[in-house]
Amino acid sequence: MSTNRLETFADGVFAIAATLLILNVDTQIGANAEIGTRLLHIWPSYAGYVVSFLTIGIIWANHHTVMNQIARVDRTFLMLSVLLLMSVAFIPFPTRLVAEHIRDDGARAATVTYGITMTSVAITFNAIWFYAVRGGRLLREDADEATVRGISRTYRPAPLLYLAITLVALVSPPTGAALFGAFALFWLFESSLFGHDRAQA
Amino acid sequence: MSTNRLETFADGVFAIAATLLILNVDTQIGANAEIGTRLLHIWPSYAGYVVSFLTIGIIWANHHTVMNQIARVDRTFLMLSVLLLMSVAFIPFPTRLVAEHIRDDGARAATVTYGITMTSVAITFNAIWFYAVRGGRLLREDADEATVRGISRTYRPAPLLYLAITLVALVSPPTGAALFGAFALFWLFESSLFGHDRAQA
Amino acid sequence: MSTNRLETFADGVFAIAATLLILNVDTQIGANAEIGTRLLHIWPSYAGYVVSFLTIGIIWANHHTVMNQIARVDRTFLMLSVLLLMSVAFIPFPTRLVAEHIRDDGARAATVTYGITMTSVAITFNAIWFYAVRGGRLLREDADEATVRGISRTYRPAPLLYLAITLVALVSPPTGAALFGAFALFWLFESSLFGHDRAQA
Amino acid sequence: MSTNRLETFADGVFAIAATLLILNVDTQIGANAEIGTRLLHIWPSYAGYVVSFLTIGIIWANHHTVMNQIARVDRTFLMLSVLLLMSVAFIPFPTRLVAEHIRDDGARAATVTYGITMTSVAITFNAIWFYAVRGGRLLREDADEATVRGISRTYRPAPLLYLAITLVALVSPPTGAALFGAFALFWLFESSLFGHDRAQA
Repeated sequence: MSTNRLETFADGVFAIAATLLILNVDTQIGANAEIGTRLLHIWPSYAGYVVSFLTIGIIWANHHTVMNQIARVDRTFLMLSVLLLMSVAFIPFPTRLVAEHIRDDGARAATVTYGITMTSVAITFNAIWFYAVRGGRLLREDADEATVRGISRTYRPAPLLYLAITLVALVSPPTGAALFGAFALFWLFESSLFGHDRAQA
Repeated sequence: MSTNRLETFADGVFAIAATLLILNVDTQIGANAEIGTRLLHIWPSYAGYVVSFLTIGIIWANHHTVMNQIARVDRTFLMLSVLLLMSVAFIPFPTRLVAEHIRDDGARAATVTYGITMTSVAITFNAIWFYAVRGGRLLREDADEATVRGISRTYRPAPLLYLAITLVALVSPPTGAALFGAFALFWLFESSLFGHDRAQA
Repeated sequence: MSTNRLETFADGVFAIAATLLILNVDTQIGANAEIGTRLLHIWPSYAGYVVSFLTIGIIWANHHTVMNQIARVDRTFLMLSVLLLMSVAFIPFPTRLVAEHIRDDGARAATVTYGITMTSVAITFNAIWFYAVRGGRLLREDADEATVRGISRTYRPAPLLYLAITLVALVSPPTGAALFGAFALFWLFESSLFGHDRAQA
Repeated sequence: MSTNRLETFADGVFAIAATLLILNVDTQIGANAEIGTRLLHIWPSYAGYVVSFLTIGIIWANHHTVMNQIARVDRTFLMLSVLLLMSVAFIPFPTRLVAEHIRDDGARAATVTYGITMTSVAITFNAIWFYAVRGGRLLREDADEATVRGISRTYRPAPLLYLAITLVALVSPPTGAALFGAFALFWLFESSLFGHDRAQA
């Protein structure tokens, strides 16, 4: 079974989940006429849009990197991918919760929900990667060992990191939200500026 | 006519139908501030999201398996595929009905609607498969006979099974809903754990 | 410029426009508890869903047929395609209007809006086809002349036909609505049962 | 890293952003029965739909042109592309604002938000192009120098032009809105009628 159709399906889910994020901003603006004030007031919606869009974009790019090292997929890999995509497609929901409630009593519940979602994205992403590499199960014949080790090293800490930020959010929701944003920006720049490119050919 | 473009269109519908499921969760949460309690209260929305996402993911994977055995498509096959996709794209609607009404008077109507939708997915899926294999009409020259028989054996009982669960839902909506969920999980694990892989190369 | 990327974009728009149709059914059901009665009452929503989904599916299949005869695209062809896709992506809106208003005073406005949309789909579809074939501008070297003539003959009357049904809808909205449905079913069966396949290889 | 998967993802976002525009028209119509009058009253929604759909279609076609000149992508290019797509996916939001408020007190805020969005689309589009061509970094070996210069010359003024229209909108919202529309139509016809085709093979 080749990897093509999985990529088409995955890219579809990534693209739709990212593009649906704008509906959350839409919901926030309401339908009243003083939109000048309102447009400034809903800044958390823009922040949420940017952070979640970047996060999905980075997941997409990383998925790209993983698939480049893989020669074929089996049924278990397909099912693990469905679990990953199920987590990614969930992201618009906690994004809206955080944007809507970061300034009221719901901030704790909202940021923790966001954190659980991101943790489960990180876990399922690790699951597809380590399932594929264990014993070279689905790897390409010519996969570069250094590259594979580099990917493993980069992805392994992600679940714990997201879990840690989730615990921070439990104590201080705004700090947690800021860390989710900082983390997305870090991934964005790290890979571009600090030579991550070498690790993936 | 090659199979490529049908796959692109089908993958698009599968990906969108699955990703739209999150809008149902969104609708349930409402816009009030006590989201902590609310987030726990809407657990049927999460269950519905998971079951329907997995179901669509499995249909997608099975469609993948079917297309791998097919060499070309004709106009009738295209039109039967449109009917399948029409049924799949309908899934978000009964999913929301079940999530919203499983705990009130509407449970019977909701689960029966879900069951009718799933039955019609199973019927149209069988239609494309048996149209393609009858007399080897659209099969690849080198299609493996054992694989083809394996697929036929696996898909044939699905419409009756979904119809049976629908009848169960008519008597006891919660039991029906639980069976739809169990059935999705069964397909997920069966194919991964019990060697279904052999049957599809 | 090759035809690949146009097909990906077009298939995306077709798939999304078709899948969004379910949101119209969703809107109709409302959020009250007597969903048993309500589910029966909104039958025009199901009819609208089926007719518009089939219509988009048929346009997709025909687009497929057209692209098979074309060797390359130029900028004008791309822009005409954007106009076609703009008309197709509009379909969910009049579909909802008809489903919602076919039984009240808005029936005339709703069905006429549906008709204008379908007429403009037919006009832009003809525009891309006749732009491509005039003087063999974008046709494949090996395009079969009989096939090309067959396609021209089939598509040419569509704008006038849809315009005629629109005029019928102006006089009798229910008759117009029924004719739009009958027309979609006709295309579905005609191509499958009466040998249209021969005309497109 | 090849350009294929970026194109699939980008085409997905373009297609979804364009198709979601219809939801804005849907929101405007409301659910009352005098839809005849209402359908005429919401003409700015249709105008907004047309202008933004054309704009996204033109961005898609231009992205196509750019990718044709590029041999490979690196991580920085992917991240810049995510920023471009983030701006494009934002378009439905200001489109709705303009359609809804062009005739009330919110016209200034709405058109300026539209202008900022378009300016940021133009900036990120320039970023991916000039990142790719600087020192021939990602260009194809056989990229035609005249074509590359032609593209650079065409895209470079766009950010300033959109910024200028945004400033006009600050003074006179209706004039700004009209200019956004005129600009989209200009691009549509310019490329089709005045031989822009030569510039891109």
